[in-house]
Amino acid sequence: MVADTPLHGVRALFFDVFGTLVDWRSSIAREAERILMPLGHELDWAAFADAWRDEYQPGMEEVRAGRIPFSKLDVLHRRNLERFIPRFGLTGLPDPVLHDLTLAWHRLDAWPEVPAALARLKRKFLIAPCSNGNISLMVDLARRNNLPWDAILGAEVAGDYKPKPRVYYAACDAFDLPPAHCMMVAAHSSDLVAAAACGLRTAHIARPNEHGPGEGERAPTVPVDLVGQGLDEIAEKLGA
Amino acid sequence: MVADTPLHGVRALFFDVFGTLVDWRSSIAREAERILMPLGHELDWAAFADAWRDEYQPGMEEVRAGRIPFSKLDVLHRRNLERFIPRFGLTGLPDPVLHDLTLAWHRLDAWPEVPAALARLKRKFLIAPCSNGNISLMVDLARRNNLPWDAILGAEVAGDYKPKPRVYYAACDAFDLPPAHCMMVAAHSSDLVAAAACGLRTAHIARPNEHGPGEGERAPTVPVDLVGQGLDEIAEKLGA
Repeated sequence: MVADTPLHGVRALFFDVFGTLVDWRSSIAREAERILMPLGHELDWAAFADAWRDEYQPGMEEVRAGRIPFSKLDVLHRRNLERFIPRFGLTGLPDPVLHDLTLAWHRLDAWPEVPAALARLKRKFLIAPCSNGNISLMVDLARRNNLPWDAILGAEVAGDYKPKPRVYYAACDAFDLPPAHCMMVAAHSSDLVAAAACGLRTAHIARPNEHGPGEGERAPTVPVDLVGQGLDEIAEKLGA
Repeated sequence: MVADTPLHGVRALFFDVFGTLVDWRSSIAREAERILMPLGHELDWAAFADAWRDEYQPGMEEVRAGRIPFSKLDVLHRRNLERFIPRFGLTGLPDPVLHDLTLAWHRLDAWPEVPAALARLKRKFLIAPCSNGNISLMVDLARRNNLPWDAILGAEVAGDYKPKPRVYYAACDAFDLPPAHCMMVAAHSSDLVAAAACGLRTAHIARPNEHGPGEGERAPTVPVDLVGQGLDEIAEKLGA
């Protein structure tokens, strides 16, 4: 029952996407293999995915720190790709291949319980991604995985990257809601602590295998309002 | 057949909403009557709706001309409401009543053929509103009328109002598409001429009763790529 808890009054749910709703690691490994294997490359595809993801925070930090203007995540993904692939012995890849690889982030698969749980949650709450992914990337993931968003919010709408407060505030503002009536749902404590500092409610989903077997957050390392082993458990606890 | 026409290559459709997809006039008249009649007011409700709509362009022009910073359409609707209601003898209405009236714009009904035609179009094209309405308003209209948007684009995302070019360009950019691969769909020639000047394709829908019986655009007054008597005819002509 939500009515008698601090969660009473929550009207919108904002979702982290990479890792929380979609399994970027095995999807990127699959896409890289699909694109590069026919070109004669044999790599550790999971290590390729991990190396790309390792460039993720430093890439966004360029924007957050104001060293470069806001750029869509697609642009950062491409920069980051070109930065790490020499370590895999990949040089001189043609531009269309680099472009296709970059768009692999538009072809990620949701964790299995996500589409049905989101549809349940939509009956009771406004739902939107509040991701660092750009709008077109979010739209492609939504179409691929049947994610029934009310709107696409997040970094591109805010013009900056999480965990900058402006990204959370912009999401609340788009729905005309005070932060206390919004809940951030993520598999990453760093995201939730930043959202909580902005006044949002928080829910943590365990994704213990996000970065490989046993390599992900089993539980939050910060105080949160709600925890779930999956989005279905979050939906259950929110009475949806 | 689209393949052999200049419409080949169109991948996204952007929609004007007020008048094009929803019947603002009879919806606002109904809502005003519902809210004000129990308070003892007897007005010409359609004239009330028309008077409110008459303030629409002048209100947005304050933003377009840079005289006030960008403000959501909800804020302009409230300003506009307070501006014209004295002419209807309405003074001293309590704030909650003014607020409820303002939100009447979130409770507009779609023209009958719109939801099914949009669902058809979504199978073939990316679809988004490119309206001057704010995100929360668009979300409420989408939920009320089952409008299955891929994303909510338009004025609030662009930070300015149509027909400023930036609003059309921001919509194309959000989907990573050049304007020539996008089509603006509207019942207003002024909207379409502005979109065409930005390089978008254009489709006109006849809404001959938008402003009352016989008071609406029966046909475009500018060159367009496509015309339809309703959105179903547009879907038909686009092969959706």
